[in-house]
Amino acid sequence: MFNFSCDYTEGCAPEILQSLTATNMEQTAGYGEDPHCQHARELIKEACGREDAEVHFFIGGTQANLNIILNCLDRPYYGLFATTASHVNTHEAGAIERTGHKVMTIPSVNDKLTAEGVEKAYQHWLIDPSRTHIVEPKLVYISQPTESGTMYSKQELTDLYAVCQKHDLYLFVDGARLGYGLCAPTNDVSLPDLAQLCDVFYIGGTKCGALLGEAAVLLNPKLKKGFFTLMKQGGAVLAKGRVVGIQFETLFTNNLYRQICQNGMDSALKIKAVLREKNIPLYIDSPSNQQFPILSKAAYEKLSRQFELGVWAYLDDGRLVVRICTSWATKPEAVTAIIQAIKEL
Amino acid sequence: MFNFSCDYTEGCAPEILQSLTATNMEQTAGYGEDPHCQHARELIKEACGREDAEVHFFIGGTQANLNIILNCLDRPYYGLFATTASHVNTHEAGAIERTGHKVMTIPSVNDKLTAEGVEKAYQHWLIDPSRTHIVEPKLVYISQPTESGTMYSKQELTDLYAVCQKHDLYLFVDGARLGYGLCAPTNDVSLPDLAQLCDVFYIGGTKCGALLGEAAVLLNPKLKKGFFTLMKQGGAVLAKGRVVGIQFETLFTNNLYRQICQNGMDSALKIKAVLREKNIPLYIDSPSNQQFPILSKAAYEKLSRQFELGVWAYLDDGRLVVRICTSWATKPEAVTAIIQAIKEL
Amino acid sequence: MFNFSCDYTEGCAPEILQSLTATNMEQTAGYGEDPHCQHARELIKEACGREDAEVHFFIGGTQANLNIILNCLDRPYYGLFATTASHVNTHEAGAIERTGHKVMTIPSVNDKLTAEGVEKAYQHWLIDPSRTHIVEPKLVYISQPTESGTMYSKQELTDLYAVCQKHDLYLFVDGARLGYGLCAPTNDVSLPDLAQLCDVFYIGGTKCGALLGEAAVLLNPKLKKGFFTLMKQGGAVLAKGRVVGIQFETLFTNNLYRQICQNGMDSALKIKAVLREKNIPLYIDSPSNQQFPILSKAAYEKLSRQFELGVWAYLDDGRLVVRICTSWATKPEAVTAIIQAIKEL
Amino acid sequence: MFNFSCDYTEGCAPEILQSLTATNMEQTAGYGEDPHCQHARELIKEACGREDAEVHFFIGGTQANLNIILNCLDRPYYGLFATTASHVNTHEAGAIERTGHKVMTIPSVNDKLTAEGVEKAYQHWLIDPSRTHIVEPKLVYISQPTESGTMYSKQELTDLYAVCQKHDLYLFVDGARLGYGLCAPTNDVSLPDLAQLCDVFYIGGTKCGALLGEAAVLLNPKLKKGFFTLMKQGGAVLAKGRVVGIQFETLFTNNLYRQICQNGMDSALKIKAVLREKNIPLYIDSPSNQQFPILSKAAYEKLSRQFELGVWAYLDDGRLVVRICTSWATKPEAVTAIIQAIKEL
Repeated sequence: MFNFSCDYTEGCAPEILQSLTATNMEQTAGYGEDPHCQHARELIKEACGREDAEVHFFIGGTQANLNIILNCLDRPYYGLFATTASHVNTHEAGAIERTGHKVMTIPSVNDKLTAEGVEKAYQHWLIDPSRTHIVEPKLVYISQPTESGTMYSKQELTDLYAVCQKHDLYLFVDGARLGYGLCAPTNDVSLPDLAQLCDVFYIGGTKCGALLGEAAVLLNPKLKKGFFTLMKQGGAVLAKGRVVGIQFETLFTNNLYRQICQNGMDSALKIKAVLREKNIPLYIDSPSNQQFPILSKAAYEKLSRQFELGVWAYLDDGRLVVRICTSWATKPEAVTAIIQAIKEL
Repeated sequence: MFNFSCDYTEGCAPEILQSLTATNMEQTAGYGEDPHCQHARELIKEACGREDAEVHFFIGGTQANLNIILNCLDRPYYGLFATTASHVNTHEAGAIERTGHKVMTIPSVNDKLTAEGVEKAYQHWLIDPSRTHIVEPKLVYISQPTESGTMYSKQELTDLYAVCQKHDLYLFVDGARLGYGLCAPTNDVSLPDLAQLCDVFYIGGTKCGALLGEAAVLLNPKLKKGFFTLMKQGGAVLAKGRVVGIQFETLFTNNLYRQICQNGMDSALKIKAVLREKNIPLYIDSPSNQQFPILSKAAYEKLSRQFELGVWAYLDDGRLVVRICTSWATKPEAVTAIIQAIKEL
Repeated sequence: MFNFSCDYTEGCAPEILQSLTATNMEQTAGYGEDPHCQHARELIKEACGREDAEVHFFIGGTQANLNIILNCLDRPYYGLFATTASHVNTHEAGAIERTGHKVMTIPSVNDKLTAEGVEKAYQHWLIDPSRTHIVEPKLVYISQPTESGTMYSKQELTDLYAVCQKHDLYLFVDGARLGYGLCAPTNDVSLPDLAQLCDVFYIGGTKCGALLGEAAVLLNPKLKKGFFTLMKQGGAVLAKGRVVGIQFETLFTNNLYRQICQNGMDSALKIKAVLREKNIPLYIDSPSNQQFPILSKAAYEKLSRQFELGVWAYLDDGRLVVRICTSWATKPEAVTAIIQAIKEL
Repeated sequence: MFNFSCDYTEGCAPEILQSLTATNMEQTAGYGEDPHCQHARELIKEACGREDAEVHFFIGGTQANLNIILNCLDRPYYGLFATTASHVNTHEAGAIERTGHKVMTIPSVNDKLTAEGVEKAYQHWLIDPSRTHIVEPKLVYISQPTESGTMYSKQELTDLYAVCQKHDLYLFVDGARLGYGLCAPTNDVSLPDLAQLCDVFYIGGTKCGALLGEAAVLLNPKLKKGFFTLMKQGGAVLAKGRVVGIQFETLFTNNLYRQICQNGMDSALKIKAVLREKNIPLYIDSPSNQQFPILSKAAYEKLSRQFELGVWAYLDDGRLVVRICTSWATKPEAVTAIIQAIKEL
């Protein structure tokens, strides 16, 4: 049975296993101070066009989010703006609140924050006569692609960052699925663009072909002080830091990251095309590797007998929003099979 | 140049890479709910003789320590007893305090807490007339082997646990180097013994042949409620949980864990023997894979030209306490070379 | 100029100053263990009809809220349900999040949570397939009267508490303005009723005639363990605990609390009556000591030349929601004056 | 029975009750923005000779300590140096750790930190090769007088502050008993001196004649940003802020603070003189309002039949360290009585 429930069902790109095997008995320093981590950092900074960036490796998204956000929110009463559906507001079991900070949800359009929305929410705080009794917004958290697969255009990101800079708000971009986003045909935000349009972001590895790992790219100089120690304190530092370093070294050599993610994108768009052909309504118009058809219970159950799928939401009319997720590892035969099954719904 | 500075300089046991490669394209559930994690849990519970235990996988020691301790300390004013040299008190950058709890150091003998010491410290709290204004001790943290390689005997552990149980204190054993401890010729605490003599412990993978990972074994039923969600909130859960599961599955198949750690122990004892022969004083009499000779600056520098060594402490008389650390990966030729060099000091 | 902006503009009921003066040179134990605190506790338990309750004194509402909530939420991943407008969600600068816990807002009716709303929100969590990745609701926070003056009927409270008990959720009632609520003609929830219909609540002193202080009444036995030490750790314990104890002793002798709050209620209803006569729209139909007329900018400015008023909200059409707040200390001539001024609008 | 167990057994200086009564029905703004708080702030800044200071009022010592320290420690991995016997390390139930930060105890002389001790501890951190894995010291906490009544000379304080400034460490002086210290005949640190020799300190009210309250004086400009909101978030702000403001306004008018504390000092020195005459050993040579005679169990019990005394410590030889504490409120007849009783021991 093919599994389309998420993009972390397999291990990793075979090249990564080869690298891990080839380097296995090298003796290196721990805690990310080894040559592979150093090389990976150089490759990433080069790919971003930001030699001044500082790169740190995390083992996963929640770990990255909570430490990056805690690093930005350096007064206890600072909070962040995010969408209601954002990962930090929903599926991290209160990780941000455990660090002591409030996630403040503001309205979104297609699960994206807008420059106008952030401006309005910020002004709302600014003019409040009891402003000093209220959490002060200090960071805007977005994801690219978002949790439901939508993406910020270069213009949208430029506008959003301008509002953030105007009000001294940090902009943090969660790139857990960035690899797929970069491959999306409609995408106009390159990695170097992104590295100019926010204060900190991370490049997802776990969902994009690594065994584990996310590469955080710190751009704003104010965010660099003591970041390693903050990570260490959060339990985020691997003794064998090279385990993640070698993976990013491999992914950022010969463009492997883009190359393997392309398969996830291509597969998703083929499935999207047949959903459209069949006039199956889509919950949201996602240009990336997650597609969200709205299915009747019967159609969902029929499809589920052949494929593992995610359930995104239960609608009041009995229908389900289903998540079909592809990845670097999705096999052509799996795509063919699900396309055929959708046609036969 | 051979590196004896720590036991996490290499990658992992080759069998682990083989397992990761063999299972790489399997599609499994995430977050540790896959068959490999389940199998690893069964193997560990069997090795511990505790079918009732609950096993969770962490990515490293600080992560394990902070989440296990936070889980135990379920009132904000609870604190823990530990040695001054304990990892949680020194090299975790305040990870436990970041969770809101106080590490209270009490006297130790050979870097080990004693039943008498814990009893005395507890009584000190209990009879204090302002007891309700003071942090309440609720957990005793020890490591086996300790940070300086010493080990608890079965009798010492039995006595310590009796005091803990008498006063409703949890006993948590950090087993980051447990593999070497189990192989120590003088050790009389088996894995099933340990699993009877504490409330929670973890089996170290990172320092004992894995790429990364520690297996926490929750024994006391009170500690099991909601542990996964607490880990998730702490950013301690891998989306591809199997990355650690497969490693423990491999290490606990055919006794591999013990088998590979034996090399670390054998190597350390050969080096210890020659240090004794040369009448080089030892900082502490360690029966496990870390040895701590006290060297003159000249001797240290001479040895350092050939080997990477750790510096444990600077003595007031100018001498250094040096750490020589062996592991599953220590090569016979490295042991031969350092023995020769010590002889020539 | 008369000040109607809030109910904490004056000092305290003169009887309290008399008590403080009369007892001033008595020598007593500190930290709330003196005879006055003990007597005040007995009087409060008697007034509540709950001899089994445990009473603790706080210096203010935010202090009470954060410690009571932290006490209830004894797992790091527990969160609470509250209205969007609730004090803990808005005007405490993130006090609850600083303790590590998430405030989850759910829909309200007249600023009140409903049994149905809590049931629905709880079910939403319960059926979520990724429930273990999500904050677990464990407490429902309401205020009586609410932040906008509305009140729970006995039936509403009974229904709400039934849902809470069904799902093992604590119900905490913030009674910062409880004194006025108890005097409201439409109120059918007596103090003994309230003490049967929640797990913990507090009786407001600061806004109801005391210099400072709130009396927390712990009803659920699970909430009593170690509460003093938790307060001490939070900096919530006064060395001269009697300063609050004497005030509550005075307020709960000869029914003084009710007697002085009656003036606040009577004054508010007189003002409400004239607002209705003049057909001035009310933002919300408040039966207690806060009234919220919607005024044109001109009317507001005219009134503001004579009286200090609060601004509750700015409407999109340019009008303002104004807060007129009365209290135990509101003078008859102030009420007469504002009634006359409203008539002349 | 006269009570010498502590300096918070009575209410407050009668002048304070007069001020509270005289101002009781004034209508003022809340949260410390009233004219009395403003006036008190001006008086305190004048007394300190620091017009640039920012003054905030707390309700007690633990509340002041935890918020001031949290304000200074603006990175999660920052910690503080303090003596083992310091209030923040012992009698605040882990308040500092609850804010996420580690209290690091270092050796003291007469319960005082020394410039040399801080230098040594700082260097110890600085040269540690694993410095980035360790809590970074950022603040030095001392009290004047100390918990056991000893006092820093102007030279000691100057040296200590020089070390702090050299290493970018904040110096915070807890002045819970400052009033007595200022009156001590041996004291050479005036209020304006103190206000030049640290970054932040507070002037104790609770133990020095107020019902409650401590006045924090923020000197270092870096510490002023957002302090009110941090206090609000910690539940440290009184709605009727004037309750503390009026007290400090009174205490700092006509030198009342010094005047009333003088009685505490004079009483203590009379008792100390007779202890010396009787050759009763003193635990520590305290120049301020707390004296610590070492008594046999029999002597302690004899004295306890007439006076309430504190027990500071139980010695191994069966003797007790007893605390005799005087205050602004100590009556002459109480002093006469205890002197007579000591003579008769």
